[in-house]
Amino acid sequence: MQYVVGIDLGGTKIMICIMDINKKIIQKTILPTQVDKGPDYMANRIRAAISCIAVKAGIKFADICAVGLGAPGPLDFKKGIMINPPNFPGWNGVPLAKLLSDWLDLPIVMENDVNAAALAEGLFGAGIGEDNFVYISIGTGIGGGVIIDGEILRGAGGNAAEVGHLTINFDGPVCGCGNRGCWEAYASGKALARFAQEGLQSGINTMITKLAKDDEITAEHVFNAAKQKDDFASRLVENEGFYLGVGLANILNTFNPKTVAFGGGIAEELDMFYGNMMSVARKRAIETNRNARVVKAMLGTNAGVMGAAIIAWQFIKSGTGHGFLP
Amino acid sequence: MQYVVGIDLGGTKIMICIMDINKKIIQKTILPTQVDKGPDYMANRIRAAISCIAVKAGIKFADICAVGLGAPGPLDFKKGIMINPPNFPGWNGVPLAKLLSDWLDLPIVMENDVNAAALAEGLFGAGIGEDNFVYISIGTGIGGGVIIDGEILRGAGGNAAEVGHLTINFDGPVCGCGNRGCWEAYASGKALARFAQEGLQSGINTMITKLAKDDEITAEHVFNAAKQKDDFASRLVENEGFYLGVGLANILNTFNPKTVAFGGGIAEELDMFYGNMMSVARKRAIETNRNARVVKAMLGTNAGVMGAAIIAWQFIKSGTGHGFLP
Repeated sequence: MQYVVGIDLGGTKIMICIMDINKKIIQKTILPTQVDKGPDYMANRIRAAISCIAVKAGIKFADICAVGLGAPGPLDFKKGIMINPPNFPGWNGVPLAKLLSDWLDLPIVMENDVNAAALAEGLFGAGIGEDNFVYISIGTGIGGGVIIDGEILRGAGGNAAEVGHLTINFDGPVCGCGNRGCWEAYASGKALARFAQEGLQSGINTMITKLAKDDEITAEHVFNAAKQKDDFASRLVENEGFYLGVGLANILNTFNPKTVAFGGGIAEELDMFYGNMMSVARKRAIETNRNARVVKAMLGTNAGVMGAAIIAWQFIKSGTGHGFLP
Repeated sequence: MQYVVGIDLGGTKIMICIMDINKKIIQKTILPTQVDKGPDYMANRIRAAISCIAVKAGIKFADICAVGLGAPGPLDFKKGIMINPPNFPGWNGVPLAKLLSDWLDLPIVMENDVNAAALAEGLFGAGIGEDNFVYISIGTGIGGGVIIDGEILRGAGGNAAEVGHLTINFDGPVCGCGNRGCWEAYASGKALARFAQEGLQSGINTMITKLAKDDEITAEHVFNAAKQKDDFASRLVENEGFYLGVGLANILNTFNPKTVAFGGGIAEELDMFYGNMMSVARKRAIETNRNARVVKAMLGTNAGVMGAAIIAWQFIKSGTGHGFLP
């Protein structure tokens, strides 16, 4: 029996799973990332963690035939490196895929983490059975992944579907990427918190202040205040629906998907802005493309690690993706 | 020896070709569309025209094994119908593919005309030998086609890559599609002419007035005035470069292409705004995606009919596309 490993590499934690040939996760673990200790330290701990869950699962390390690695974009999946990763200071250009492959003595396929999550959602979650599926993650930032006929739309360097950086207002606020008026600068969790902070600074009276106490204001505070009928917070949530609708129309016009699924922290509150978002998106998208099914993602925080493992299977079985050998 | 036919159906003319198995066009003709005479009249003339060029090419009609039909979007390629085609009043919902298939007694594959042109450019023009190619047509409107590994990115209904209707300013001018601030509403030939008209109405002194005489102002007048150093026209062309750059950055972030080719009437003047467009796009696109090769399309007005014929070959050989049988 053969198995693969999936790794979902985040800025604060690493999820690792072992998946069998039926795409069932048979064992899983989570490590702190400890970015500051560097890539070799991390690779060594990942190796130990895989050995450990292999024992727990009752399988031999030698039965693991490949590893899928989901890492934060942007990255160069052909070179197996992350490019200026914001949460990994000092890791720019580190040959992460090759390095892990050497430490683990296994073939590695590296992929954008949102693409990995999209693949899992597309094959086993919200997009099951559909040819044209888009996954959008709305958390601190906005990321996307497009699955066509069961495969990731990668583009030349693995950075297609960077939908968070679609300009929706060319004169808009500066985004973390340097561009102006990106979708992410209007509709991400960070943007929602920024709009709240701006309101507070202009002296608006809102419950958000009380909810946040001495902490930094987050999107969660805004949603919680809106749930308690706070005027300002409700207005911010309505705007959130509008901005998401504008960007969603762009997604519909660009990919003409059958289904779009929203994941990530902000999508947990989808019910609060779904109606508004959909009415904006349906009005703005071209007639033929506006009737896509738009739903909440189904796999939660498991999507990334599951997708990473599926990518490893796709590499072994059909040679898709770009593999690194030890 | 087997052959296919390609048809490029436009609002004013229809191009038809016969292509051999080596993807060489062996004969070609052009008919006026005569939209007002209806689909059957058109189908009958297309049949006669194909018979005629088959004779000229010295082949038998019976050696033609399939027809590729490129038609203006939006359309439903699975149903073989055009949807509210602006230049074909009264043709909404006409079962064009099935109807032609019956008249010609041949299998038909229907495709968006810009997708067809994109396929030809991707395989035999500006994108030759590349896995990730985007073709953008800038004429009266803006259309796009994406070719990945030699195949069209179709989406669920055949209307992916409607890039002209990507919102680049959600508060912007109303577009023909009903949305606000589409790329097309800023950077198409029609938009350029509109900006010129608005300037004239506000009393700006410009050579454009003289060039247009009593005719309606067109993008061509603007380019010609700019070539003669007219201040206002030069500013409009600079803005055109800016707006194209904003939209191009969206294309780069969305598809991460290796090559982007611009076709259509406005692209004929690419040299006049290329530098500005590229500097805007490279500044706005994310780091990993900004270095795509951006060029003028190579196949000119033949791209559509050539692509339509290639689609017919793809349908016959590998079953891609959605065929209609007589």
